[in-house]
Amino acid sequence: MSNEVRSLNEECGVFGVWGAENANYLTYLGLHSLQHRGQEGAGIVANDGQKLRTYRNLGLLTQVFSKPEYLNSLTGNSAIGHVRYSTAGENKIENVQPLLFDFTDSQIALAHNGNLTNAITLKRELEDKGHIFKSSSDSEVLIHLIKISNKKTLKEKMIEALNKIHGGFAYLLLTKDSLMVALDSHGFRPLSIGRLKNGGYVVASETCALDAVGAILVKNVQPGELITISDLGMVVDQWTKKTKLAICSMEFIYFARPDSDILGINVHSARKRMGANLAKEYEVTGDIVVGVPNSSLSAASGYAEESGLPYEMGLIKNQYMGREFIQPTKELREKSVRQKLAAVKGVVCGKRVILVDDSIVRGTTCAYIVQLLRDAGAIEVHLRIASPRFMHPCFYGIDIQEKDELIAAHKSIAEMNQIFGSDSLEFLSEEGLIDAIGLEADAPYSGLDMSYFNGDYPTYLYDYESKK
Amino acid sequence: MSNEVRSLNEECGVFGVWGAENANYLTYLGLHSLQHRGQEGAGIVANDGQKLRTYRNLGLLTQVFSKPEYLNSLTGNSAIGHVRYSTAGENKIENVQPLLFDFTDSQIALAHNGNLTNAITLKRELEDKGHIFKSSSDSEVLIHLIKISNKKTLKEKMIEALNKIHGGFAYLLLTKDSLMVALDSHGFRPLSIGRLKNGGYVVASETCALDAVGAILVKNVQPGELITISDLGMVVDQWTKKTKLAICSMEFIYFARPDSDILGINVHSARKRMGANLAKEYEVTGDIVVGVPNSSLSAASGYAEESGLPYEMGLIKNQYMGREFIQPTKELREKSVRQKLAAVKGVVCGKRVILVDDSIVRGTTCAYIVQLLRDAGAIEVHLRIASPRFMHPCFYGIDIQEKDELIAAHKSIAEMNQIFGSDSLEFLSEEGLIDAIGLEADAPYSGLDMSYFNGDYPTYLYDYESKK
Amino acid sequence: MSNEVRSLNEECGVFGVWGAENANYLTYLGLHSLQHRGQEGAGIVANDGQKLRTYRNLGLLTQVFSKPEYLNSLTGNSAIGHVRYSTAGENKIENVQPLLFDFTDSQIALAHNGNLTNAITLKRELEDKGHIFKSSSDSEVLIHLIKISNKKTLKEKMIEALNKIHGGFAYLLLTKDSLMVALDSHGFRPLSIGRLKNGGYVVASETCALDAVGAILVKNVQPGELITISDLGMVVDQWTKKTKLAICSMEFIYFARPDSDILGINVHSARKRMGANLAKEYEVTGDIVVGVPNSSLSAASGYAEESGLPYEMGLIKNQYMGREFIQPTKELREKSVRQKLAAVKGVVCGKRVILVDDSIVRGTTCAYIVQLLRDAGAIEVHLRIASPRFMHPCFYGIDIQEKDELIAAHKSIAEMNQIFGSDSLEFLSEEGLIDAIGLEADAPYSGLDMSYFNGDYPTYLYDYESKK
Amino acid sequence: MSNEVRSLNEECGVFGVWGAENANYLTYLGLHSLQHRGQEGAGIVANDGQKLRTYRNLGLLTQVFSKPEYLNSLTGNSAIGHVRYSTAGENKIENVQPLLFDFTDSQIALAHNGNLTNAITLKRELEDKGHIFKSSSDSEVLIHLIKISNKKTLKEKMIEALNKIHGGFAYLLLTKDSLMVALDSHGFRPLSIGRLKNGGYVVASETCALDAVGAILVKNVQPGELITISDLGMVVDQWTKKTKLAICSMEFIYFARPDSDILGINVHSARKRMGANLAKEYEVTGDIVVGVPNSSLSAASGYAEESGLPYEMGLIKNQYMGREFIQPTKELREKSVRQKLAAVKGVVCGKRVILVDDSIVRGTTCAYIVQLLRDAGAIEVHLRIASPRFMHPCFYGIDIQEKDELIAAHKSIAEMNQIFGSDSLEFLSEEGLIDAIGLEADAPYSGLDMSYFNGDYPTYLYDYESKK
Repeated sequence: MSNEVRSLNEECGVFGVWGAENANYLTYLGLHSLQHRGQEGAGIVANDGQKLRTYRNLGLLTQVFSKPEYLNSLTGNSAIGHVRYSTAGENKIENVQPLLFDFTDSQIALAHNGNLTNAITLKRELEDKGHIFKSSSDSEVLIHLIKISNKKTLKEKMIEALNKIHGGFAYLLLTKDSLMVALDSHGFRPLSIGRLKNGGYVVASETCALDAVGAILVKNVQPGELITISDLGMVVDQWTKKTKLAICSMEFIYFARPDSDILGINVHSARKRMGANLAKEYEVTGDIVVGVPNSSLSAASGYAEESGLPYEMGLIKNQYMGREFIQPTKELREKSVRQKLAAVKGVVCGKRVILVDDSIVRGTTCAYIVQLLRDAGAIEVHLRIASPRFMHPCFYGIDIQEKDELIAAHKSIAEMNQIFGSDSLEFLSEEGLIDAIGLEADAPYSGLDMSYFNGDYPTYLYDYESKK
Repeated sequence: MSNEVRSLNEECGVFGVWGAENANYLTYLGLHSLQHRGQEGAGIVANDGQKLRTYRNLGLLTQVFSKPEYLNSLTGNSAIGHVRYSTAGENKIENVQPLLFDFTDSQIALAHNGNLTNAITLKRELEDKGHIFKSSSDSEVLIHLIKISNKKTLKEKMIEALNKIHGGFAYLLLTKDSLMVALDSHGFRPLSIGRLKNGGYVVASETCALDAVGAILVKNVQPGELITISDLGMVVDQWTKKTKLAICSMEFIYFARPDSDILGINVHSARKRMGANLAKEYEVTGDIVVGVPNSSLSAASGYAEESGLPYEMGLIKNQYMGREFIQPTKELREKSVRQKLAAVKGVVCGKRVILVDDSIVRGTTCAYIVQLLRDAGAIEVHLRIASPRFMHPCFYGIDIQEKDELIAAHKSIAEMNQIFGSDSLEFLSEEGLIDAIGLEADAPYSGLDMSYFNGDYPTYLYDYESKK
Repeated sequence: MSNEVRSLNEECGVFGVWGAENANYLTYLGLHSLQHRGQEGAGIVANDGQKLRTYRNLGLLTQVFSKPEYLNSLTGNSAIGHVRYSTAGENKIENVQPLLFDFTDSQIALAHNGNLTNAITLKRELEDKGHIFKSSSDSEVLIHLIKISNKKTLKEKMIEALNKIHGGFAYLLLTKDSLMVALDSHGFRPLSIGRLKNGGYVVASETCALDAVGAILVKNVQPGELITISDLGMVVDQWTKKTKLAICSMEFIYFARPDSDILGINVHSARKRMGANLAKEYEVTGDIVVGVPNSSLSAASGYAEESGLPYEMGLIKNQYMGREFIQPTKELREKSVRQKLAAVKGVVCGKRVILVDDSIVRGTTCAYIVQLLRDAGAIEVHLRIASPRFMHPCFYGIDIQEKDELIAAHKSIAEMNQIFGSDSLEFLSEEGLIDAIGLEADAPYSGLDMSYFNGDYPTYLYDYESKK
Repeated sequence: MSNEVRSLNEECGVFGVWGAENANYLTYLGLHSLQHRGQEGAGIVANDGQKLRTYRNLGLLTQVFSKPEYLNSLTGNSAIGHVRYSTAGENKIENVQPLLFDFTDSQIALAHNGNLTNAITLKRELEDKGHIFKSSSDSEVLIHLIKISNKKTLKEKMIEALNKIHGGFAYLLLTKDSLMVALDSHGFRPLSIGRLKNGGYVVASETCALDAVGAILVKNVQPGELITISDLGMVVDQWTKKTKLAICSMEFIYFARPDSDILGINVHSARKRMGANLAKEYEVTGDIVVGVPNSSLSAASGYAEESGLPYEMGLIKNQYMGREFIQPTKELREKSVRQKLAAVKGVVCGKRVILVDDSIVRGTTCAYIVQLLRDAGAIEVHLRIASPRFMHPCFYGIDIQEKDELIAAHKSIAEMNQIFGSDSLEFLSEEGLIDAIGLEADAPYSGLDMSYFNGDYPTYLYDYESKK
């Protein structure tokens, strides 16, 4: 799927640190490991115990922090950071997180991964009371709810506010006194806490970011938890008792980095098992197994191992391909696409290729990749997708909220096979996926959000209920 | 080897086109496919039949051509382009190619991949005659030799000049009338010619660039050839009869893109055979085979296939790592390195890892990678290098001209094994390498320049003779 | 005064247009004429009848709109714009105006020139009700007050809100239906309305911006007016009846562009009369009259005309001096200052110079200019200031709110004369200033805010009352 | 003339320093004072006694040296610098000076103000000998001539080379051992030498640059001089005895900064005398005298003083006008021009204006300025030009080499008056100009190059002889 034009986009990665020198640099390193979760904007807020300072902008992390002074200015021993994906047209700096709120007597910074399902309703209610929002993101609602709470402590205000919102969220809140961490009641998004050698705490969307700063995993945040980290240590509270794990299955299939562990399960290994299950489910005669780089390589190697066929590097990705690539004239558009992926003729020529892709969302580049292999001499191309048919939008933090965009929602497998020009096309079954991930959850409930594939949303959808 | 700090650097990629609309865009696309051959500077000269125009600058191709107008200004149906690596401190724009020479009555543009071994001597002689050089690169010498020739036609002048220079070179020369292509008498550097569907000609350092613009390979340029492409077609001359193929073995081992074919041999496949031969040469008990991404993945998969062990993605590379990454404080330096490569714990934990790298030059990052695997739980790390010990500098176009920089020139295998912290260390034999590449050259002579490994330089070294 | 390091800074210029094609370009041109009123940030909001769009950033107007697409994206027939001065350390993009507020069902944009005196109190009250502010500027308060109003129409809400705020303000509000213009009850800031040939309306802080877009002045906005411009034309309301003109005298003395007319009085001509009155008030024997470029040239020529002495170009300003000028080492600091102003030796050598400056605020560069003239050979330097002693801070829109910064508040004329190294020093009297400006207001009240000189603030100061 | 679109452009300013710490910064400061002599490119070469280092680029000085490291990298106690004007289309970095030539055993840097009249011929001859030029500027010829000289010392080579070239030149040459300064045999361009307090030497195109670094004038370089500055002090030689002063009259009229002294004559004062003589030559009834800012203000004040009419600021220039100003649509083009200059209505309304401009070259903006004044209410506009009719191109260093561009070469005064829409038009006489400048040269020969006005070129024109 990694080659689709505007493919599926995660809406964020968050990272936080408390109690460490160079909190700014640690956050920079952590966010760099989470860059795959959002490339449209990045920001950091640091806290020196007196004042919170921020720097954020549109672009990749390294583009945002293009000058050392931007990072150096963020002094203090704690910080939170965010990398963001924003839908086209709304890539305005106001929406880049962390959001920093300056009140006359205090400051709060907020970083959010996920999507609220009742934000529109809440926002309307707050506006009717005279509230003004500074961003068009749903993330800001939480702060307004905290602000109007009559409770006494920030933790109490926070619990009251969390009980008013619905949907998917992993929140980091930073004040001069503490770093607060909250996860929604279904645990839609992964979130882990680690410790540094010096004793400081680190929170991150994925464990690869803990590794990046040399932190050791101490806790995977559980649904409904509210964790407060301060100079007194870490306190775990439960903001709600009504919890039920439903972690996003696409994190395992596509989003997360292969070296991350989600709830103790290594992502690369889970993907290998998806590929292996795919090989078991459908028999086909081929000569080599080729994965679409880079996201499908794990699944492809699992497929190859299970099928006994050689795993080959039949496609390679141009590592210098960037957004700044100049789009030539229309006539040269096709050649331009060839810049991104190239087929290795010496590998695929004369071969029956089993092409493994992790998932199909819009399906816009499948036909191109199949043709690329045929041009390089492949005599057959059998397309195998290491996840079930993606037919339903997501409302918990992924930017597909329209069924129209999903090819599998409108076309049969046979139709898609014809559109892509492949010799055959098959998808992994839901059971095969659940088995591959292997969460230890009570049967028959898997602990996974599988709504992409079966439309079975774990929650009522509020503002989006009509879009189901 | 791809993770060494300042690893081995190719000194260029060249691309040319004659007789095609959008010659500027085709050259841009072609150079983009050759970006791995040089990341320090890029430029294009285009010819509209009346005038040659140039744009060039320091940086990656997409950075150089950051605005469409830079590329659009280069009008005409023919063009040459260049991507360049330049040694630190000499990254000045004067040395970025193609060099464009404006004479009162004519213009010549020049792009050069390679290194001359008698340029210093020739330059001194020319300066004594009053000549002034505009760049500090050796490439410019050729134009001066052409300029002082008393011959009548440009081709005759060119032949006279080529016979005065020694070393490695693949030259492209563009005038308003023709595109001239010349290869040194040993064919140190690869160079291929293709044709576009409309009949236009394309020349490129690697065949992956022909693929990128949709051209079909029609000829691999042979040692000693001088080829003239004009509106009359392509004429092949021989500027010298004294030729003997000695193509750079490092092109197969490390430099070239896996989807390129060099003299008809697919690079990825050759690397797989190197890995396979490595597995045959040394027996070792392991659980999984892991390659250093990205350059060693082909060799690792060949090793795995031959050994029957699983090929695993035990290391992953951060695709967002760029030069602009801010270097944190010294204490955080180690964590910064972790940004580039990460070990996949779920894969390597508890395993005996056979780690395959394509080559060792300076050896600066081997110890780091071994440690990375151990930190992730590997119980043994056996390092296998898919090429012989790199002990001698190169004078034909690679930027290692000092023996001091080469760890294998000074340390025994046992010493290196200790330095790297690996459980064992072995290198592919010279015979294994020659067999893996499989050039059809007369035995015992392989057709390869193997001087990196045995110090047996195919030519007298002139200015560098004392450095041997 | 123009050469003082961090001299007096106006806090804004505003410009608006309704009912004209290319509203974005007209606003750009208008703001360019108002650039002298604020150089730290600039922005434009345009309205196409459906949606308001904004682009704003830190820097000069031409730096902000560095690419044509930024301006082109702002489509529609109406627009407002703003140029801003922001105090050091608070130059964050959040504070750059116009501020654009996106409500669920509507949008409002706001541009403000001035300073509210009870904003801190109001902000605290609103925060206590749960409101969150997105900027740290006082300008935002108005929108919150509008939002909480129970009135029905925007105009009624606006009138209610305006009656709650105090201080100096010239507001432009843009919605998709109208452009609203409001001036405080004392008219502290100038604001004028003009019409384009096509019938469209233009509003600007100074008339020079009307000239810049080819508009004809139709009305100087009066204290307490609320003007609504829509497709139905212009409607003038009075949001309060309690009005009393007290326009800022420093607009005449220093801020406004010489080609602007304020309340019908040409600024250049008023300055000439200030210089003439200064010549009448103090007799001194000199050879030539020299003004500090550029702000004091009008006053100097008036002085010369009245005194009968020649007006000479004894000082010139480097037109290429910009912020990006690199500050050399400490030893070279003095030479660096010489880059800004230079004395014309051929003019001042051997002369008794009467040096006219428009005002003295911090007094930081007076000594330097006197020395510059002496180094160039002046035998006497008599410093004459074309305004009274500046001894009291401003709370209505100028960035001096601390008495400590004002040299005249702490030093006698004799002391200042010694500090500056001048042969004599005199200031224009208050009467001389009032006479020079010549507003037709009832005697003895002048219609001018003269509080800078006499501490007689026209209003209660609320949040700042203690700072008097 | 300062408002003409692409008006007259000086082709350079040069600055050099020997024997001073911070030579790089002093050169930066000096060039900043000479920025008016060239805004297209800037560069500095510094010498630390071992190595010459350079940094140069297109743009204003502050744009070129946009980061402190660019300037800091230029270490050493001597340096030369250059600001350049380049004709449109040829603004390539190769032509930005100083040019630095790296020979195998030595380095020479060159900065040149002026234009050679036999460069094309010499370049052709050198190319026939096989020489290759790196720039398309004529400046490079000198180095080639030095390089082919058989003389022994650099000074002897230099003298031989200087005797082969013709035209206008002020050369600075820097080697690790000395700074050489040469002026052509007519002294077309101004060039002065000063000393710093610490004893170091400074050379500059204008004395304002000496003032800027705190240096004292010690010598105006004379025609035919070759001056060598080294650690041994300053040695003055004569490279030719055939000299005859013919300094460019346009330096006095337009190019030089008013605070500079040329050959002991203050430029501002000379311009005042031009204005005064203009008033004497033609009688006209008017109310006020207005100069076109900034270049014509001196002449206007001289005119006013002589005529007894008030000198008024009837036009003001927008100090924020830069190249980066976005050009709106065609319909708004006129309004865009209004951004550059504005008429002060309060001054000119109802007045008979005598408008003084320093010169008319292409005449492209005169009509616009006259209309501007009429729109502001002027009842008569009498245009007075403080120099004679500019009818002949320049070949000694100004970028007008085509008679076609000069309006006075093709139109009578009556025709121009009609084109400009002025009520009357008059030009200063040649005698009036010579008298105003007042060089102490033998009558009837004035010591000035007056060829712009009378076509009487002081030298044979070689390559340009046919263009006369």
